[in-house]
Amino acid sequence: SRSINLAVIPGDGIGQEVVAEGLKVLSAVLPQDVKLETKDFDFGARRYQATGETLTDADLDALKKHDAILLGAIGDPSVPSGVLERGFLLKLRFAFDHHVNLRPSKLLPGVDTPLKGEPAIDFVVVREGTEGPYTGNGGTIRKGTEHEVATEVSVNTAFGVERVVRDAFARAQARPRKKLTLVHKNNVLTFAGHLWTNIFNKVAEEFPEVTTDYIHVDAATIYLVTDPARFDVIVTDNLFGDIITDLAAAVSGGIGVAASGNINPSGEFPSMFEPVHGSAPDIAGQGKADPTATVLSVALLLRHLGFEAEAARIDEAVTADLAERTGKPARSTSEIGDALAVRVAG
Amino acid sequence: SRSINLAVIPGDGIGQEVVAEGLKVLSAVLPQDVKLETKDFDFGARRYQATGETLTDADLDALKKHDAILLGAIGDPSVPSGVLERGFLLKLRFAFDHHVNLRPSKLLPGVDTPLKGEPAIDFVVVREGTEGPYTGNGGTIRKGTEHEVATEVSVNTAFGVERVVRDAFARAQARPRKKLTLVHKNNVLTFAGHLWTNIFNKVAEEFPEVTTDYIHVDAATIYLVTDPARFDVIVTDNLFGDIITDLAAAVSGGIGVAASGNINPSGEFPSMFEPVHGSAPDIAGQGKADPTATVLSVALLLRHLGFEAEAARIDEAVTADLAERTGKPARSTSEIGDALAVRVAG
Ligand SMILES: CC(C)[C@H](C(=O)O)[C@@H](O)C(=O)O
Ligand SMILES: CC(C)[C@H](C(=O)O)[C@@H](O)C(=O)O
Repeated sequence: SRSINLAVIPGDGIGQEVVAEGLKVLSAVLPQDVKLETKDFDFGARRYQATGETLTDADLDALKKHDAILLGAIGDPSVPSGVLERGFLLKLRFAFDHHVNLRPSKLLPGVDTPLKGEPAIDFVVVREGTEGPYTGNGGTIRKGTEHEVATEVSVNTAFGVERVVRDAFARAQARPRKKLTLVHKNNVLTFAGHLWTNIFNKVAEEFPEVTTDYIHVDAATIYLVTDPARFDVIVTDNLFGDIITDLAAAVSGGIGVAASGNINPSGEFPSMFEPVHGSAPDIAGQGKADPTATVLSVALLLRHLGFEAEAARIDEAVTADLAERTGKPARSTSEIGDALAVRVAG
Repeated sequence: SRSINLAVIPGDGIGQEVVAEGLKVLSAVLPQDVKLETKDFDFGARRYQATGETLTDADLDALKKHDAILLGAIGDPSVPSGVLERGFLLKLRFAFDHHVNLRPSKLLPGVDTPLKGEPAIDFVVVREGTEGPYTGNGGTIRKGTEHEVATEVSVNTAFGVERVVRDAFARAQARPRKKLTLVHKNNVLTFAGHLWTNIFNKVAEEFPEVTTDYIHVDAATIYLVTDPARFDVIVTDNLFGDIITDLAAAVSGGIGVAASGNINPSGEFPSMFEPVHGSAPDIAGQGKADPTATVLSVALLLRHLGFEAEAARIDEAVTADLAERTGKPARSTSEIGDALAVRVAG
C-alpha cells in the first residue's frame, strides 16, 4: 500500500497558519489507502533564539528520512538579516541538492492582476537552485574601514547548468506550447553567460520540437509586464530566478497564490515545497493569511511524488475557489482551507 | 561667454535617428550667447566590423576633451553578444568613472502604462556604475568541456559604495519627499550586503531629514508593479540597477521615454547621456523611433552642465507633447523632434 512520510516545517509568522491548512487539504485529497505520516520540525527564529542553532547535521539526517518536506516560512525581524536565510533556507537547498527550483505562474480566472487587459499568463520558471551568486563564495577584507572590499562570487559549472537546462527542456517538451526561454545577462556576465548559452544551445539539439529563445534579464522584466503571455517555460540562474519569480508572482495574482518546489529530481534527497511568500510577521497569528500558495505547493509536492490525479484535484479546487471570490467578504485562513478541503474531497 | 563642447556618438541602428533629433532640440533650446560645438564619433558595430576596434586609448583621449557626451545606441546582431557591451559601453563607463548612473522614472499625463489605476510614478534610480558584477572580474576554466567552471565576481568597495550612496542621499534631500530606498539582496549576498547596508546607515546619520528604507531586490520588483508611488529615490548596485530600471521604464511609459545619465560628479571626466533603449535594428532607418528618450537625456545633460532653465524647458516641452498624443496619428522620428524643437524655442 502507498504511503507518504512527510517532514513538516511550519516555521515562523504565518508559516504555522498556512501549513495547517495545507495539511488539511492534503489529508482530504488523499485516498483512504494512502497512509500519511507527518513529523513536525520546529525550525526557524524561535529555535535560533533559544539555542543559536539553525540547521544541524542531526537535523539534516532526520529530514533525510522523509519522502518530502512541506515548509511554511522562515524569517523574523528579531533575527539579523541573512542568518536564517543562509543558515537554514539556503543550507537546506544546498545540502539536499535542490537544483531545480520550480515556480509556476498562472493567472487564474477571477484573480486580480496589477496589469491591464487580463493577459493570458501561464508559464513556469525553472530556477537553478545550487549555484550562481547563492553559493556563499566571496568575502570581506578590512571590514568596517574605509578600505573595505567585499566580493560575491557567482559559481557556474557545466555539470550544474546542464542538469537544470535539461530538466527545463524536458518540462517544455511536455507542455502544449513547447517553448523554452533562457534568461541571463550574457552580454555583461560573459563568463557565466557563455557557459549558460553554449549549454542551452547544445541541449536544444536534443529537443528539436522545443522552440527556444534568449532574453536578457533586464528585458525579461519588461516583457513580464508588457507581454507575459509570450512565456511558456523559462530557465535561468539562481539570482535572476529569484528576482523574476517575485515579479512573475506579482503579475499573476500576487504572492498569496505563488507556490514553489525545491526539487532534487534524482530523489536522492527529499524535495521541499513552500509558498513563495515569507513569514509576514505583520499579519501573523490573525488568521488573515491566504493559505492558497501553500495548498498549491502541496499540489506540486503530490505531483512530484507521483500523485498526479490528487495534484490535479487540488489545482481544480483552487481554481474554482478563486473564481468565486470576487465580491464576497474576505475569509479567514482556516475558512479558505476548509473550503478547499471540502472541494478536493467532494 | 558660455559654451558647450559636445562629443556625439550616434552609434548603431536607431541611434543615428534619435541623436539627430536630440541635437535639433538642444540647438533650439540654447540661448544665442551659448556656443555649441559638436564633434561626431563613429563608434559601434560599423567601426568594429571594419577595424576590429571598439574604443581605443586615442578615442578616450579625444572624448576626454569634451564637456559631455551624447550617445544614441550601440549594438547590432552582427556583432557577438558582449563585444560592444564590454568593449565599448562598459569600457567607457569605467574609463570615465561614471559611478552615478542616473535613471529617472516619471509617468507623465497621457502616457500609457501597463499598470491599472494610473499610479503616481515619480522616482529616480541612482545605480552604481563602476563596481558590482560589472567589473569583468571572474573567468572560465576547462572551457567547452563537461568540467567547465565559470565565475563572475561582484566587487564592492567602501569607497565606491559610499560615494554613490552619498550622491543618492543628496538627491533625496533636494526632492520634496526626501525619501531614499536601498535596494539590495543583503540576506543572501551577505558580504556585499553588509557593506552596502552599513554604509547606507552611516551616511543616513548625516541626512536626518531623509526618510530611509530597505527593500530586497526581488521584493522591489513586486512594489514596482503594485505600488510604484512608494518610491522617491532608490540607490542600488550596478546589476540590480540594470534590472529594476528596465522594469521602472516599462511601468512608467516604456523605454521610448526613458533617459539616463552616466555621471562623473567630480567633472574629472565628461559624463555621458543616453536613452535607455538600445539600437532596435528591427525598426532602424524607418523614421519610426521615438526620439523622446534622447531628448530627455539631453535635458539631463543640460542640467548636469548647469543649464537648469533650459533643461526644465525641455522637460515641459516633452510633457506637453506627450499629453497631446492620445488619439492622434503616429508621427515620424523627425516630426516629433521638430515639434519639440518648436516648443522649446517658443
Ligand atoms: C529568503 C531568500 C533566501 C529566498 C531566496 O532568495 O531564494 C527567497 O527570496 C526565495 O525566493 O525563496
Ligand atoms: C547594454 C548593457 C551593457 C547595459 C547595461 O547592462 O548596463 C544596458 O542594459 C543598460 O542598462 O544600459
